[in-house]
Formats: sequence, C-alpha cells, structure tokens
Amino acid sequence: MFIEVGISARHVHLSRKDIDILFGKDYQLTVFKDLKQVGQFAANEKVEVIGPRSAFKAIRILGPERKKSQVELSATDCIKIGVPVVLRDSGDHRETPSVKLVGPKGTVELEGGVMVASRHMHVSTTTALKEGINNGDLLCAEIPGERAVVFSNILARVDETYVDELHLDTDEANASFVKDKQKVEIYKCQK
Amino acid sequence: MFIEVGISARHVHLSRKDIDILFGKDYQLTVFKDLKQVGQFAANEKVEVIGPRSAFKAIRILGPERKKSQVELSATDCIKIGVPVVLRDSGDHRETPSVKLVGPKGTVELEGGVMVASRHMHVSTTTALKEGINNGDLLCAEIPGERAVVFSNILARVDETYVDELHLDTDEANASFVKDKQKVEIYKCQK
Repeated sequence: MFIEVGISARHVHLSRKDIDILFGKDYQLTVFKDLKQVGQFAANEKVEVIGPRSAFKAIRILGPERKKSQVELSATDCIKIGVPVVLRDSGDHRETPSVKLVGPKGTVELEGGVMVASRHMHVSTTTALKEGINNGDLLCAEIPGERAVVFSNILARVDETYVDELHLDTDEANASFVKDKQKVEIYKCQK
Repeated sequence: MFIEVGISARHVHLSRKDIDILFGKDYQLTVFKDLKQVGQFAANEKVEVIGPRSAFKAIRILGPERKKSQVELSATDCIKIGVPVVLRDSGDHRETPSVKLVGPKGTVELEGGVMVASRHMHVSTTTALKEGINNGDLLCAEIPGERAVVFSNILARVDETYVDELHLDTDEANASFVKDKQKVEIYKCQK
C-alpha cells in the first residue's frame, strides 16, 4: 500500500497548566493551520526552548492541549541545544531530558518530556482491516530515489479517528530526501 | 560482510589557490588528526562558510589540497545557510551552489562546489576481490537497532589505496542512530 508522509519539524505540545504560565491564565491557543489528523492543529503561538548548550528562539506549538507538555526534536536539534538524544513513543516520558520553555507571560522548567519521536504511522480502522494491520505492528517504508532508504520499526497506531499518515522527522527526511505529502510504499517488515 | 562506518560532519576541501588567498601565499595546512583513508587528514585550520541565509563560523578543513575547493554539507546544513540541497559524488561540481569562504587572510567567492555527498563506500582491492565487488557497484547497508534503516544506492569505490569504510553524513547518522566506527552489514542491493 502507498501512504502519505507527514514530516514533523521540531514542535511543542503544552498542558493547560503550562499554557496558563507561558501565555496567561485561561489563554486559548489559536489555529495557524489544521493538520491531517482530525482535531490536531499548528498554533500561531510559539515558545523559546532553552537547552544546556543553546536555544531555539521560537518553536511552534501544536494543539490541542495535552495532559503533559512534550517537546519533540530531531536528534540534530538535541545535539544543537545540548540535551541527550532519547527515542520515545509520544506520551512516554520515562527518563527523558528537560528544557526550559519561555513564553510571553512566564517560564516553565519542564521535568522531562523532551524526545526524538519514534517512527510511527497513523492508520485508519478501515485501512487496517483492508491491509491486515494490527495496532502495534511494525511496518517498513520504502523511500525511492537517489538517496533511497528503507525505514524499519515503524509502529502502526490504529484508531477509527486516524487518517493514514506516516510520520517521519526532519533528520529522516533529510537523510532520504522524502518530501512532505509524498506517497511511499509501506509493508510489514520481514523478520 | 561487515564494514566500519565513518560519519562525515560538514567539512571543506581547499585548492592551493584558495589556501593562498584564505591563509596566505604558500601556507601549509597542519594535521589535527589523521583520517582512516591513508594520507587524508583533518586539519587544525577552519574557515567561515557564508550562505545566503546564515553562516557556519568555523568549518574544519580536510587535507590534503584538492584540485578544486569543495564544501560538503548535510541537507540540514544546506537548509540552515540557505543553499539548495544538491546531491553529488565528490569532485562532481556540475550545477552545485556557491558560498563565500572567509579565512584569516582573505575571502573566496566559490563558483559551485557546495554539495551533499552521495553515499559511498571505500573498498580495498583485497576486499573487492574477496567479496566480488566491482568499482561502481551499488551496495546496501543495514543499520540495526531501535531506529533501524537500510541505506541503498551506496556507490562502491574500489582502489588499492583504500581502507574499507562506509561514509555517511550526519543526517544519515541522526536518522538511523548509527555510530561512528560501528560495523554494519553490507550487501549488494537486489533490484
């Protein structure tokens, strides 16, 4: 099957509590652009992300609010700002490094939540049934072209609210020259 | 077969003429560290590399001198300084972008020579004979681990002076978590 790639640049998810501190009590994030996954959006708001070595002046926030704030960086980004490179599934903050966030109204010292996101693919229930994919399966994606690559260990996440989309980060895009919205071949990894 | 990976960070090769301008007439590069390929070395000297959008303050020079100056960047680096991402085999400067180099004694406006280097593997004649590899063959490299990847389109360069080594850049390393000097499995790509 061929699935569309969505390339994730560095971004931040914020909890209600942290939005209150960074942007002011009861502040509501505003929509810059809707994302492919229903209800998810890139916000107009950005925060500064400060690591031990250096900082990113303005990283975009993705909404809606999450239970815990989370900073998703590429490995290149982690090295630049001086935090360890830790690969995690979104939401899994075990032994993840911390950074400081600075907004227009305040500052938050995170306790963990900084990660390189594991490769994953959002799969609609319809596609999962049709293609025989189960939640948690590991898939492979073949990127053709002059910098051809096969990415393994892509975690299938099946949900009826999901739109089919393979999420890769900017390091993976720059290593393979895959483009945002490119359709690539996906298959179950042979072991 | 298993071959050692050498990860190339951004670097510059300089011609005699450009060393004369950047460092002074007849200046000789000095050895910071010998590289795995015989006669190749990382120099103590660095230059500033200025692109249309931003600059790298100090990029290391690799010696010895080359016929033409060449700047090897990752795609991430190209995007950062604002030059097009152009994949080329080393030495092939057709339609490559340009940057300005600044050294302690002068400035050079390159005419092309900025590239993302194509994946390639140095293969000794001994290994080539043993493994049935011909100069120009395309090889695949399997990187195991949590961010497992297969890199295709690795150009085999066979020469009796070469030491077996797979060259990848920092984007490829950060996308796969392969480490410098890690031994990885190499095989002929199936088409």
